[in-house]
Amino acid sequence: MVEEAVDVTQKLHDFGMSIYERVEKLKAPSFAYPSKGLSNVFYEEASRLVRQGGKSSSRSFLNLAHTRKFMQTLMIAARCQDLLDESKTASIRELYYQLKHSLPGPKEENTFEDQTESDDCVEDLERMLDVLREQLHLNADRRGFMHGRIVIEDVGDIIDCSAMGSGGYAIPSNIERIKIKEVDADYALVIETDGMCDRLKEEKFDKKNNALLISTSGQASRGARRLIHRLSSEFSLPIYVFTDGDPFGYYIYNVIKCGSINLAYLSERLATPDCKFIGMRMTDIDKYGLEKVTEKLKPQDEKRVQEELSYPWFSSKEWQAELNLMLKKKVRIEQQALAYRSLSFVADEYLPGKIAAGDFLP
Amino acid sequence: MVEEAVDVTQKLHDFGMSIYERVEKLKAPSFAYPSKGLSNVFYEEASRLVRQGGKSSSRSFLNLAHTRKFMQTLMIAARCQDLLDESKTASIRELYYQLKHSLPGPKEENTFEDQTESDDCVEDLERMLDVLREQLHLNADRRGFMHGRIVIEDVGDIIDCSAMGSGGYAIPSNIERIKIKEVDADYALVIETDGMCDRLKEEKFDKKNNALLISTSGQASRGARRLIHRLSSEFSLPIYVFTDGDPFGYYIYNVIKCGSINLAYLSERLATPDCKFIGMRMTDIDKYGLEKVTEKLKPQDEKRVQEELSYPWFSSKEWQAELNLMLKKKVRIEQQALAYRSLSFVADEYLPGKIAAGDFLP
Repeated sequence: MVEEAVDVTQKLHDFGMSIYERVEKLKAPSFAYPSKGLSNVFYEEASRLVRQGGKSSSRSFLNLAHTRKFMQTLMIAARCQDLLDESKTASIRELYYQLKHSLPGPKEENTFEDQTESDDCVEDLERMLDVLREQLHLNADRRGFMHGRIVIEDVGDIIDCSAMGSGGYAIPSNIERIKIKEVDADYALVIETDGMCDRLKEEKFDKKNNALLISTSGQASRGARRLIHRLSSEFSLPIYVFTDGDPFGYYIYNVIKCGSINLAYLSERLATPDCKFIGMRMTDIDKYGLEKVTEKLKPQDEKRVQEELSYPWFSSKEWQAELNLMLKKKVRIEQQALAYRSLSFVADEYLPGKIAAGDFLP
Repeated sequence: MVEEAVDVTQKLHDFGMSIYERVEKLKAPSFAYPSKGLSNVFYEEASRLVRQGGKSSSRSFLNLAHTRKFMQTLMIAARCQDLLDESKTASIRELYYQLKHSLPGPKEENTFEDQTESDDCVEDLERMLDVLREQLHLNADRRGFMHGRIVIEDVGDIIDCSAMGSGGYAIPSNIERIKIKEVDADYALVIETDGMCDRLKEEKFDKKNNALLISTSGQASRGARRLIHRLSSEFSLPIYVFTDGDPFGYYIYNVIKCGSINLAYLSERLATPDCKFIGMRMTDIDKYGLEKVTEKLKPQDEKRVQEELSYPWFSSKEWQAELNLMLKKKVRIEQQALAYRSLSFVADEYLPGKIAAGDFLP
């Protein structure tokens, strides 16, 4: 942890010095940063990750169109160095409020008008310095909770997540400061909805199958994604992802697996290419007699499936078949629809059957 | 716990018998239930709660307009009895899927078309039987987490919430099965945003002030409200509520304190009339020099403030002054805007100062 802080401090220092040196040489202060957006994002077959490309842009203090953003980026870099020095973290909302003030002049102007301006600069800094915002001591929103045989150290407390009652250990936003002391589970089941995670906990699925249960509470937060990544990369733990059978569920899976377009520069740290998709699948509907508990696809869902069909990360024949079957059936199916069979069906038959048979999507 | 289950079973049994007896006597099966909506809700000064009035409606099997809902209510009552017998709980989404099937006949019809139909009947049953849905073994959505010196027993696990790292204990949906073993805190601070709760945890506010920290993650879930209620009523713990300074924050406070119009019949069990409001307040803006970090009120916010001015639960002169000041200033202020002063300002000055001075809104 300490080594890492030194490394980030060094990167911030080098960034500051590169600007300072240009000023000393009477050159216009400027810096280069990797370009954003879809045009600088690609899917890398070998790593199975959404990656950032090599294009870069530059920002110069003496270009009037750049001056504001230049100043904002430097303000944030300086504030992050303070946070590192003070051993404090801040939410990106706090960062915004900390740096917001008005600059004197003929026309009074604010350093930041709203949080999207500061959030943008935070992403630029992550890209430029190749660090996670959490390493800059900035926190994103948190979401999700966990059960199972994993022992962690979190700000000095030793936490055994196998004895967290029905509530669970709430996953914090910053996973960098967590030490994973021990993982004594056979795999982690990552679950889209809190309700399904609660079901599996009530059925003692974690104990009966020696599984970790991680609820992402919808789209996985950066913290949850980083935790899943660490379980896979540091502990070689198999990861099975269990979402609703709809375009949003498949998107959630894909972000966990390959990364997202927005945060493509972080895929190597946030994504988990080895994870597998366990359900819900369109083929489950006939196989388990769930025809009565599907919901009709809405037009915007159909459009989303069409888009997913065209993404390289869904190009495998298995996913193409799955997505085409959804368009054919014109339905979606939720995780909790398995309750139609019985409350314990998901825990006693559905999941163990799929795991025993190795019946996953890639 | 066991006694309580018997009591609920008895109520379900009595309900079933009352229908059965009418059938035996060749009378039309029917039942009465308290009317819903604003017209049957009032604010009771003495208890300081939003309460349900005495109006009731009736539902008869032989009235074609009632038949469907009559059947649905009985299906749900029967399923709840099964859950009690099996010692299982179900989410209201699972309940919907469990009971959804098509009825044979010349025109095939589904028992339930969507979840709003079953949710409606659940609320009716709660009203009629005067029980919490959690006592019927039904779970609502969960949200929120907790830190501090409280020891609970949750499905057999003993959980010490003072050693939960930066993550915290995730508050489950069903608080009925939690035993609060020990509370060794001076008060509970209930916080609207996760980010602010994380801030206070990082500042060790819980340890330095011997406080419980409860993040509601926005609007408080039923579970969080029930937990706060129990801390206040069973342990006489002072409760201070800390929200954004805007109409939504004030609404969150009010639901925790007096109950909500929708769930007026549960106010006695979910609401905490003794809790106090600690901030954010409009007067904080001048007092702490936060003029630069306010946000403009939107037209819909102004409308919401006007509505709040007219509610009896905001009729105290303190709240009237607060709401009128918001309309005058035409701004809102977030909790995290306190970071403008410094990251630790909220923990070192703002909150301790208000608590020491007893500077609360009722």
